[in-house]
Amino acid sequence: MNMLWEKTRDSIGILDQEAMNKAKERLDFLLKPQGSLGRLEDLATQLSGIYGEYPPSQREKAIVMMTADNGVYAEGYHSYPQEITRVIAEVAGPGLTGVSVLARQAGAKVVVVDVGIKDEVKGEHIIRRKVKYGTANIAKGPAMSRQEAIQAIEAGIEVTNVLCTAGIGVIGLGEAGICNTTTSAAVLSSLLGLEPEEVVGQGAGADEVAYQAKVRVVKEALSVNKPNSEDPLDVLAKVGGLDIAGLVGCCLAGAANRVPVVVDGFIAGTAALIACRLNPQVRDFLIPSHFSAEKGTQLLFAALELEPMLYMNMRLGEGSGAALAFNLIDSARLIITEMGTFADLE
Amino acid sequence: MNMLWEKTRDSIGILDQEAMNKAKERLDFLLKPQGSLGRLEDLATQLSGIYGEYPPSQREKAIVMMTADNGVYAEGYHSYPQEITRVIAEVAGPGLTGVSVLARQAGAKVVVVDVGIKDEVKGEHIIRRKVKYGTANIAKGPAMSRQEAIQAIEAGIEVTNVLCTAGIGVIGLGEAGICNTTTSAAVLSSLLGLEPEEVVGQGAGADEVAYQAKVRVVKEALSVNKPNSEDPLDVLAKVGGLDIAGLVGCCLAGAANRVPVVVDGFIAGTAALIACRLNPQVRDFLIPSHFSAEKGTQLLFAALELEPMLYMNMRLGEGSGAALAFNLIDSARLIITEMGTFADLE
Repeated sequence: MNMLWEKTRDSIGILDQEAMNKAKERLDFLLKPQGSLGRLEDLATQLSGIYGEYPPSQREKAIVMMTADNGVYAEGYHSYPQEITRVIAEVAGPGLTGVSVLARQAGAKVVVVDVGIKDEVKGEHIIRRKVKYGTANIAKGPAMSRQEAIQAIEAGIEVTNVLCTAGIGVIGLGEAGICNTTTSAAVLSSLLGLEPEEVVGQGAGADEVAYQAKVRVVKEALSVNKPNSEDPLDVLAKVGGLDIAGLVGCCLAGAANRVPVVVDGFIAGTAALIACRLNPQVRDFLIPSHFSAEKGTQLLFAALELEPMLYMNMRLGEGSGAALAFNLIDSARLIITEMGTFADLE
Repeated sequence: MNMLWEKTRDSIGILDQEAMNKAKERLDFLLKPQGSLGRLEDLATQLSGIYGEYPPSQREKAIVMMTADNGVYAEGYHSYPQEITRVIAEVAGPGLTGVSVLARQAGAKVVVVDVGIKDEVKGEHIIRRKVKYGTANIAKGPAMSRQEAIQAIEAGIEVTNVLCTAGIGVIGLGEAGICNTTTSAAVLSSLLGLEPEEVVGQGAGADEVAYQAKVRVVKEALSVNKPNSEDPLDVLAKVGGLDIAGLVGCCLAGAANRVPVVVDGFIAGTAALIACRLNPQVRDFLIPSHFSAEKGTQLLFAALELEPMLYMNMRLGEGSGAALAFNLIDSARLIITEMGTFADLE
């Protein structure tokens, strides 16, 4: 019998070509040179294809913020206390974090999920799906078992399914998890066959010493765990994190529910890549947002075959870039529904 | 006695360093790694410096859309009828054009100015500041006299002054004018000392034959008129257009009123460059928006020392890219006013 994650993966469909053709036809009749609204036109077409409707309707939006701790913090190179993961999860409810502010501006909810914070977390806004109290240190052994990775993916799937049932029609990927640029770099290095130096970046603000330590840690993680790059779940479990795993579930379930999934930066993009490796059809349901300042972003987005729309030099995470892109999704829907056509002139 | 445009040019101040320092201090205390919100932080600081206040207040926004016809249309390479300029000006009021839709989304007004459409224009929404019924053909002689260029600049100044007096605190540059990518290319070629091939692009949709004709026309315009590249007004009058001139006025007056001026694409950027040549202090009051698909955009923005934030592959003009950037300006103001600080955690 298939597990939830397998059923979800196998239920992902393809874009609705008929709705997309109707959208393209309309776009070509609007009061403008053909194609001159560029990626807004592509987005409007993609939305039609995802929703299977023309014109694409307005949908409620949410950022799903997967929060979890990473055992690799024990390596001691990180400049922020590990408690920041919990703090960000807790204050995202009252609306004090970056993503809370930007999501509120976009009229979107922030749904915070504790999928593996190392301590107990306060706050009624937090959805409790803790798989374990933080992962193990990837520099010494696997972050988690394959079963735990699947449990976190399925937490992401179930949260996303509930949101979609409740009418959410745009999902943004957010996260908080101290050291998750390290785990993402390890995952990418394995999946893309890249040297750690190509994908390790400054994260929240590593200096040169911390940067070198981070590179060493990723190398050790790959050498100790020997993840099988042909098996995305093996890579995720051995050198990834619970936050990434939760987001993989969001990608799979978003696509299965025919809802666009807005990728944020480096960590969310890593999760999206794993999801695409599990089922390449996920790709058509992804919408890129910003080009993160984190090193390796270019290689990551090239692998995803996605081109970011926003170049804001941001590296906050949390889903802050995805929240900024929500406005562009609204723009795309508005041009196709509200612009006049040459016929209106007669 | 100085003319209005000279008085305006000479009254442009500098950014308020004290307000910017306060903004930077606040940004460094917010609940995030320092600098991790990248260009949103830069924008929040710039807004403080422009307004001379910390925190920067919310201001009403408007796109000023300068519309005018270009005599170079007579060269016959353009694929759209010249009447499109008038049509776009007329339907921008009822809200059917691209910029109308995107400005409405951003809560911004669209202010349409007829600064030189070749025919009479209908619509009570249009501000009538027609300098002449279209310019002359730059391939045969000067587009207009120096006096006419100044008159159009001053129309832009006066419209902007009225808007700022009425409380508008963010100005976006918009335009409509068939053939204005040709005139912009001629201006840029002269001002930046570039070969026409480097700045002539496909505009609204030139095919290869039209493209070659456009290059030839720009070469002829420069060879016939011999604009003095050290004298921006000479270049503007001889090979520019009334729409561009009007936008130069918007840039000067926006800066003089201490209001940010949001640059759109290729034509608006050309106007901004002329304004910066008239007074380099204009530069600090400019906010870039999108990277237009028009060839030469990279060279133009390099000359302006501005880096676009949005990469949407758009080439509609009208101020559509500026309207998209309004949301990012709001985001910048919101993060500095609404995000929590580490002190909020205690």
